[in-house]
Amino acid sequence: MRTEIATLGEFGLIRHLTEGLENRQPSTRYGVGDDAAVIACSEGKQTLITTDLLLEGVHFDLTYVPLKHLGYKSAVVNFSDIYAMNGTPTQITVSLGVSKRFSVEEMEALYAGIRLACEEYGVDIVGGDTTSSMTGLTISITCLGEAAPEQIVYRNGAHDTDLLCVSGDLGAAYMGLQLLEREKLVLKGGDQTIQPDFTGREYLLERQLKPEARRDIIRQLAEEQVKPTAMMDISDGLSSEVLHICTQSKVGCRLYEEHLPIDYQTAAMAEELNMNVTTCALNGGEDYELLFTVPLSAYDKVSQMDGIRVIGHITKPELGCALVTRDGQEFELKAQGWNPL
Amino acid sequence: MRTEIATLGEFGLIRHLTEGLENRQPSTRYGVGDDAAVIACSEGKQTLITTDLLLEGVHFDLTYVPLKHLGYKSAVVNFSDIYAMNGTPTQITVSLGVSKRFSVEEMEALYAGIRLACEEYGVDIVGGDTTSSMTGLTISITCLGEAAPEQIVYRNGAHDTDLLCVSGDLGAAYMGLQLLEREKLVLKGGDQTIQPDFTGREYLLERQLKPEARRDIIRQLAEEQVKPTAMMDISDGLSSEVLHICTQSKVGCRLYEEHLPIDYQTAAMAEELNMNVTTCALNGGEDYELLFTVPLSAYDKVSQMDGIRVIGHITKPELGCALVTRDGQEFELKAQGWNPL
Repeated sequence: MRTEIATLGEFGLIRHLTEGLENRQPSTRYGVGDDAAVIACSEGKQTLITTDLLLEGVHFDLTYVPLKHLGYKSAVVNFSDIYAMNGTPTQITVSLGVSKRFSVEEMEALYAGIRLACEEYGVDIVGGDTTSSMTGLTISITCLGEAAPEQIVYRNGAHDTDLLCVSGDLGAAYMGLQLLEREKLVLKGGDQTIQPDFTGREYLLERQLKPEARRDIIRQLAEEQVKPTAMMDISDGLSSEVLHICTQSKVGCRLYEEHLPIDYQTAAMAEELNMNVTTCALNGGEDYELLFTVPLSAYDKVSQMDGIRVIGHITKPELGCALVTRDGQEFELKAQGWNPL
Repeated sequence: MRTEIATLGEFGLIRHLTEGLENRQPSTRYGVGDDAAVIACSEGKQTLITTDLLLEGVHFDLTYVPLKHLGYKSAVVNFSDIYAMNGTPTQITVSLGVSKRFSVEEMEALYAGIRLACEEYGVDIVGGDTTSSMTGLTISITCLGEAAPEQIVYRNGAHDTDLLCVSGDLGAAYMGLQLLEREKLVLKGGDQTIQPDFTGREYLLERQLKPEARRDIIRQLAEEQVKPTAMMDISDGLSSEVLHICTQSKVGCRLYEEHLPIDYQTAAMAEELNMNVTTCALNGGEDYELLFTVPLSAYDKVSQMDGIRVIGHITKPELGCALVTRDGQEFELKAQGWNPL
């Protein structure tokens, strides 16, 4: 079934999508429906704010990304930024640019994914903007969070001898993307009735299509009373993020190739595609894992925590930032960014 | 001079654009440069949040909108939403989607406009996202503001017998748009060396290209200790906004055609284009004036304030929402929204 957005109109679509929204956060005093939402300040907390802009054809390809997954991921990547400050996400605003190509049902699917993510993470949708677009789908989400000032962790607090730690494993989301891109090419070229077989690669797809933010790691660290000295989430790739922490903290680092956490499916896929798995782990991006530093004294605690791996250590700035390979060679870390298309 | 964005790269561009940003708001504890910005809560205040998504080809046409003006307007329309809650804008985040068509110099011009607006209104730029785009320019701005809870004005507080008031004048921004669109058509068709003559229409262009948010009205109301019972800003057109207030407040209203504030240039342009000037004032949009209701007892105060006009009054809901024309006829108010392109 396909209902044209024109049958609802702008205000009808907004009302329809935001129908039955319930606020869970005590700080949400007024949500959707006025010129601005109203948020109370929690006693002793500060407000965190982060934002992400996702554009069709750049950040997602609707030929293989289901809209509900896209909605989920769009919200979760923002939560990840708030956790990376050692905070708790509390509210989001959702702005959508929608072209005529999309139906009401498709927008429902997208919004259902956003709402599901918000339910799972206890976040309220408090506002947004919905507008027509000439060119496909645009998603802009801004997330508010809160944290006690003394709990906030910045990127600039890493010190010489601190341990460099990472949660989960790296490179899987990137391998998932390669897999989806390959199947897209296959389907384009040939028999479109063949369903791609993703058996044994479910983890890669899940990491690409439905990432989670590491709330569990933030909670574990709090329970063990380990406060990182610096932290950020890995969205552009480990190398790029390590360099951000080192630049902002004015330190150097050594990362050990042998300690990089890599899932079996990631390694198998990299081999199949004839790619270097270490490069994938360093530059793949979209892992949404946490990268953080802790004082050397926290070694016993972090090395026993589930899902955390010590991958290196911080050095004096003059030593630079380098990867130490399995055979003991050192390579300078380099960042990758985007360039306009 | 044209510098390709590729020569700076993603992080270089962000650094370049946000260079030398100074925070003026005492509540800004950490701005651009980490996973999220950190905002302190001002004593006794609540946080307001609003967001706007602007897409090339839908909300602006770069063939006649200078980028610096576009930046200025993009910020100001968000401030307007915060004033419409009777609050003060304090911080914004700025997300930009930029295609290869744009140069570093063009992004500088856009950002210069945003920065200028922030300086004039005392607002800090605390974060954002900059990404490549396949399809022109995307601007997503989210604005935070603050207000004491007892000062916040919603859309739902209008009561029977309240006066309906509007600031400034209406329809001029829409006439400015018509003027620019007409000149674009003329230039497209013919001699591109002729400079369009906008003499005597400067006000229309200014209203379209460089609107201001009515901070002055908010201050005047505060000084005179008049707290509106309902308020919103006029972005989609007077009719649409009056209906929002009446629907949310569960009331009706009467608007008087003869009291609608219309500038001489607006009237002259409407006549030249053979358009009904009342229709332009009712449905034009982009006025960014404030629409509000006050108790009847505030009549003496508001009728003496600069730049405020009483245009009608609130009624019981069963009377509906209507415009009373100069000859005493009543017409039901209708809203306009957008439909996907």
